[in-house]
Amino acid sequence: MNVVEDPSPGPTAIATMDSRYSEGPAHPNGASRKSSAPSDDEPKHPVRKTATYRHVVAIHSQVRHSCLSRDSTNAPSFIGFRNLMVVVLVAMNLRLVIENFLKYGVLICIRCHDYRKQDVVIGTVFLALVPCQLLCSYFIELTASRHAVRVVGQAKKTDEILNESRRTWFVIALLHSIISFFGLVVTSYAIYYYVNHPGIGTLCQVQVIIVSLKSYSYALTNRDLRRAMLGSPSTDFEIPELYKSCPYPRNITLGNLAYFLLAPTLVYQPVYPRTPRIRWSFVGKRLFEFVCLTVVIWLLSAQYAAPLLRNATEKIAVLHFGSILERGLKLSTISLVIWLAGFYAIFQSFLNGLAEIMRFGDREFYTDWWNSPSFGVYWRSWNRPVYTFMKRHVYMPLVTRGWSPTAAGTVVFTVSAVLHEVLVGVPTHNLLGVAFMAMLFQLPLILLTAPFEKLKTPLGKAIGNSLFWVTFCVLGQPLGALLYFFAWQAKYGSVSKTQP
Amino acid sequence: MNVVEDPSPGPTAIATMDSRYSEGPAHPNGASRKSSAPSDDEPKHPVRKTATYRHVVAIHSQVRHSCLSRDSTNAPSFIGFRNLMVVVLVAMNLRLVIENFLKYGVLICIRCHDYRKQDVVIGTVFLALVPCQLLCSYFIELTASRHAVRVVGQAKKTDEILNESRRTWFVIALLHSIISFFGLVVTSYAIYYYVNHPGIGTLCQVQVIIVSLKSYSYALTNRDLRRAMLGSPSTDFEIPELYKSCPYPRNITLGNLAYFLLAPTLVYQPVYPRTPRIRWSFVGKRLFEFVCLTVVIWLLSAQYAAPLLRNATEKIAVLHFGSILERGLKLSTISLVIWLAGFYAIFQSFLNGLAEIMRFGDREFYTDWWNSPSFGVYWRSWNRPVYTFMKRHVYMPLVTRGWSPTAAGTVVFTVSAVLHEVLVGVPTHNLLGVAFMAMLFQLPLILLTAPFEKLKTPLGKAIGNSLFWVTFCVLGQPLGALLYFFAWQAKYGSVSKTQP
Repeated sequence: MNVVEDPSPGPTAIATMDSRYSEGPAHPNGASRKSSAPSDDEPKHPVRKTATYRHVVAIHSQVRHSCLSRDSTNAPSFIGFRNLMVVVLVAMNLRLVIENFLKYGVLICIRCHDYRKQDVVIGTVFLALVPCQLLCSYFIELTASRHAVRVVGQAKKTDEILNESRRTWFVIALLHSIISFFGLVVTSYAIYYYVNHPGIGTLCQVQVIIVSLKSYSYALTNRDLRRAMLGSPSTDFEIPELYKSCPYPRNITLGNLAYFLLAPTLVYQPVYPRTPRIRWSFVGKRLFEFVCLTVVIWLLSAQYAAPLLRNATEKIAVLHFGSILERGLKLSTISLVIWLAGFYAIFQSFLNGLAEIMRFGDREFYTDWWNSPSFGVYWRSWNRPVYTFMKRHVYMPLVTRGWSPTAAGTVVFTVSAVLHEVLVGVPTHNLLGVAFMAMLFQLPLILLTAPFEKLKTPLGKAIGNSLFWVTFCVLGQPLGALLYFFAWQAKYGSVSKTQP
Repeated sequence: MNVVEDPSPGPTAIATMDSRYSEGPAHPNGASRKSSAPSDDEPKHPVRKTATYRHVVAIHSQVRHSCLSRDSTNAPSFIGFRNLMVVVLVAMNLRLVIENFLKYGVLICIRCHDYRKQDVVIGTVFLALVPCQLLCSYFIELTASRHAVRVVGQAKKTDEILNESRRTWFVIALLHSIISFFGLVVTSYAIYYYVNHPGIGTLCQVQVIIVSLKSYSYALTNRDLRRAMLGSPSTDFEIPELYKSCPYPRNITLGNLAYFLLAPTLVYQPVYPRTPRIRWSFVGKRLFEFVCLTVVIWLLSAQYAAPLLRNATEKIAVLHFGSILERGLKLSTISLVIWLAGFYAIFQSFLNGLAEIMRFGDREFYTDWWNSPSFGVYWRSWNRPVYTFMKRHVYMPLVTRGWSPTAAGTVVFTVSAVLHEVLVGVPTHNLLGVAFMAMLFQLPLILLTAPFEKLKTPLGKAIGNSLFWVTFCVLGQPLGALLYFFAWQAKYGSVSKTQP
């Protein structure tokens, strides 16, 4: 046996033979080409048209490596395994769907849903009344702007006028604060004590929080625009170019305020970038998506999440750790799907549809948060309306006053934590503090995952991103859902009539 | 409200302010950088060192699209969702592991395994005796080569000599055929009737088939090399360059045959490409991989596949379609993992390790079959030793004799189908014909999926590849496993003592 490392591709093929069965009529289909058109790296068969076939071809003609070996110079593509992951995910979840059906049958029941008439009445009243908070803000600002115009009109600024102005601005700030504060507290109190249904409660609470944030932004922005007009000594800043088409106090109109109330933003600007026209087909598509996704979320919740949560509460009650973990992991997939569907429904379909109707130009409601290598990047990208609000009205003012970015960030997350607790705890009538703590817990998470932002290798990014997904969607979400559901069940039992 | 589509990034930032809080000491950590280093597309804050902060920044300064919208010009990366798929797959399977443990406890039990002493004895005898078939082939070839040398030695070829030669070659072919045929039939018969344990039976059957194919290749290759030496009229073909270092009949030695018996190939060549030396560290790693994967496969089979198959057989017995489907889908994941582990263990670890020990150069035992867009590509790439054997000794001879590629392909798959049925049916004592039909069913599958080979778009390839995975690993494998297991259970009950 000789040591032969022959790099040549074996005996040269004779063209006539090869062409005979790669061009001839004996080629009815693609399947049969499998051996008749050997690739370049395969040894050709040394047969001639006149020769009968000989079993002597050197199949093994050179040293070659298995493509998964480290010796192999060019790594193979693994795209097939990505497809396999999708196939396996579909198969595994299809199985769970069948298993769920065999176990529970159809759980979806429109008439079974139990809600009180009082809830609907209060909910409707809230949806109608809450925007009045912004109306109050408007009247305050209208008064302020008239006063400001009067001050500017005075040729000579006497001490008396300046003193009177100072008093006026103080009163205006006080009124805004009172309205903002009581708007949030009174409505939350009413929802906590008078709205039983958690869904209706959440809808009302979301609206209350949005309007509060909007009125806060409206008051602060107009205050600073007023100061710029009055030319007070500490106002040597530039008004953005965009605003010049509608200078203060021409922006203090009911139309301008109504636009801000309905526009998909929490940040007040006298003028926004606008699109030239409303594309109704775009609005229709977004509405269709939103309706479909809402139905999907409802079906998933009723058929899959609800029985799972009920089973899990039994396990939590007896504190069987293995079973709680098993239920939590099962819940994680379904909560993840609901979460993604909810994200798309709200941030892509709803906000884009609303923006199109309002001809609102800036639709960066989110960036590619799913690629986040760290929690810091995630919180900056997934909810841009809240992020830009916090940055403009909480974080930057503090940093400009000399606060350290960490301190300012802590304030942002504390405010956010309070709002999250109110949003989750008030409608579920359980101010457990879990949402509050979960938000504050983001600060150490941001610190711990920050090093991943600097990693440039695909593997480093993948690890950071996977850590984010695990912490957030596999551990965080289901745990929170379980805790609030358990607390709700313990306090009230079920929202559905048909449950055992 | 004005229609303003302002493309400018808002008021220019004043450097002193920005630098103050991106370079100053107030930067203890990365998390706090989140807002202090705004990206280029964000409006800068128009504040100066001397100014207090003003809430007038134009956050919404230009028309922008949501990155998931079709309006968006540059599509975002979705690599994060690939990571999420991995995370979800791990979470889902971790849950199944916990569920399995809570349900069954530990099922792995080395001493519980039930095998008969007779099986081990027969298995050992087989492993020792089967290579004797190749020894017979050797002696036949030795005789033939001596005769050939004698014929060549004759100066004048009389009719008598030619007639005698013709008789000799006929007898030799007959002897080879008898040995090959009886080698396969007698041993399969013995395994079917005397080896009870399916594992030991499969090992023996694999060896029987490999040795049969090797002896077939040995006989055919040497016949044609002999003809080339004798210079018979129909042998105007070239002997591959590689073989010239060991021309016929110098290759008819026991050493050469022993190398072929142990080399990781089914195709006989007098000379193979060789590597210069044995890297024992490489052998060690491959052996370690092989042992680990074998243990993993055994654990997976005992703990996960076995109870699943037992449950499933109950459902098959009562023909509950929904449950059979559910069990089949659950089985698909575990059978897929076992299949992939088995592929790696045999084709990467075992064959590469063996090749290294044998200094066998050509290690293309597989190519990237996982990316197959069609069944044709899959069958050409996943098992190269069998593919090259079939191509050299079955497909090409037929095509050269004028058969259509489709007809030749059908013969290849029929031979393969018989061997598959023997391989699966004999050790399980159930010649159901399922493996046979499954292999023949590949022909229409190859025809149907052939159009996907021509698709150039990533989506087209992904669809073809996904269809391949679904058909092969989600539907095909578990169905086959279920049927043979069901037949086994129906005939013999269990191989384990502890089962209920």
